[in-house]
Amino acid sequence: MSKTHPFDQALQFSGGPEQWQGKPSPAYANTVGPFGGITAAALLTVLLDHPQRLGDPLSLTVNYVAPIADEPFTIDTQLIRSNRSTQHWLVTLAQQGEAVANGTAVFAKRRETWRDTERTFPQMPPVETCELVPSAFMPPWGKNYSIWFEDGVPIFNAGEKRHSSETTHWMRDNPPRPLDFASLAAMCDIFFPRIFVRQPELVPVGTVSLTIYFHALAAQLAAHGEQLLIGQARANRFGSGYYDQSGEVWSPTGELFATTHQIVYYKA
Amino acid sequence: MSKTHPFDQALQFSGGPEQWQGKPSPAYANTVGPFGGITAAALLTVLLDHPQRLGDPLSLTVNYVAPIADEPFTIDTQLIRSNRSTQHWLVTLAQQGEAVANGTAVFAKRRETWRDTERTFPQMPPVETCELVPSAFMPPWGKNYSIWFEDGVPIFNAGEKRHSSETTHWMRDNPPRPLDFASLAAMCDIFFPRIFVRQPELVPVGTVSLTIYFHALAAQLAAHGEQLLIGQARANRFGSGYYDQSGEVWSPTGELFATTHQIVYYKA
Repeated sequence: MSKTHPFDQALQFSGGPEQWQGKPSPAYANTVGPFGGITAAALLTVLLDHPQRLGDPLSLTVNYVAPIADEPFTIDTQLIRSNRSTQHWLVTLAQQGEAVANGTAVFAKRRETWRDTERTFPQMPPVETCELVPSAFMPPWGKNYSIWFEDGVPIFNAGEKRHSSETTHWMRDNPPRPLDFASLAAMCDIFFPRIFVRQPELVPVGTVSLTIYFHALAAQLAAHGEQLLIGQARANRFGSGYYDQSGEVWSPTGELFATTHQIVYYKA
Repeated sequence: MSKTHPFDQALQFSGGPEQWQGKPSPAYANTVGPFGGITAAALLTVLLDHPQRLGDPLSLTVNYVAPIADEPFTIDTQLIRSNRSTQHWLVTLAQQGEAVANGTAVFAKRRETWRDTERTFPQMPPVETCELVPSAFMPPWGKNYSIWFEDGVPIFNAGEKRHSSETTHWMRDNPPRPLDFASLAAMCDIFFPRIFVRQPELVPVGTVSLTIYFHALAAQLAAHGEQLLIGQARANRFGSGYYDQSGEVWSPTGELFATTHQIVYYKA
């Protein structure tokens, strides 16, 4: 894999494996601090690169503890428990010695079992008929993704209140990059804040906690390569300054690669 | 609130606030180790009781690191970060000095904002017309809950394969107990493993990681008291030894009190 892609450049850390040093990539900056998805990918990457790592990512919860400043950070990894088939990790991103993000992750050796996907695969029209989100309207991180919506970019439906925040889109890294667990994790945070789909004003928002369940196996990701993915997300409940959203990342052929949930602060 | 309820007795810890001592309650035993919901409630309770605790629970992720033995445990609390309106905590349950469960939690001061519930409130027939799960068929913890299904207890549909694992039920503590954040957390793990709804055999299962987003405010829980709740859950994807399930806990009047997600090991 080319390490010249902005995504790989953003995940270059020195040191390790118990403590790594890095700094936020301007390419993945958000309106305040970095894109939450790149932080999730950073926490996962140092675990994937740990020599004691066993199996593949199964679940990852990232807590966005405090704003991440544009200055160097450390990432500490701690193996909590390892048995024959699963591992539990704690990982902490700190600046000036204070935690600004942390995460718990489970890795597992997967084996063949009975399988079924209950969640309905969203039927999307061909990408050629969909509308690409203009990168000029995106914060810096958005320029590293291509996102195509079926019926217009929902974030810009200002004034037109919708009764559901569910959206579905095609997506991939820009420029294209072979899919791996780190980029899949980042794409789990790609969904516009659902409040922007429902409310006409751009209000301050911030993810507080993000959870990802990885259903894809390493071989599926390798076979997927640089193909497009389908993302779908919706909110469950908005109230008292916080809402939760749930989403899925699918292959174009209907393989559910990841399910993801987050709780988000909003000022509205 | 009466402290003679089995739920309260199971959550009696000594020491604190940085380290607590306790032991598993036989009343909340599962087939192996304790009911995951009582472990979630234990981790939340020591945070709720912490003198530095600010606001109400917003999110809780519990990782079930290793089997919990029928012997004393400690629970360590660590305040990661506190600002004006939110707090991040790390909490670890250990036996013999080794972590067997851990959790990250966010507490927040809530304030009035625009609100909306997108998730559809499940319409349940009156509880009088529903079927109570016979406690004789439940592991010990199940005897502390009353659960009524609309159309028979799905776990016992052996041989009759269903194409969806979604179930909806009435539920409450048995005997009734006023709802609070700890009991709401426990009830987020009350849903039968979804694999039991889909497959006719009782296979080994175990929750690996559980996340709860609390939408209810303390005043809503206080007003709810001992009334029945409605629980609904479904799986998204089964495969390679793990499946995820998502669920909701509702008041009888359609208030969404909590959304919850978990990833579960299964042998099938």
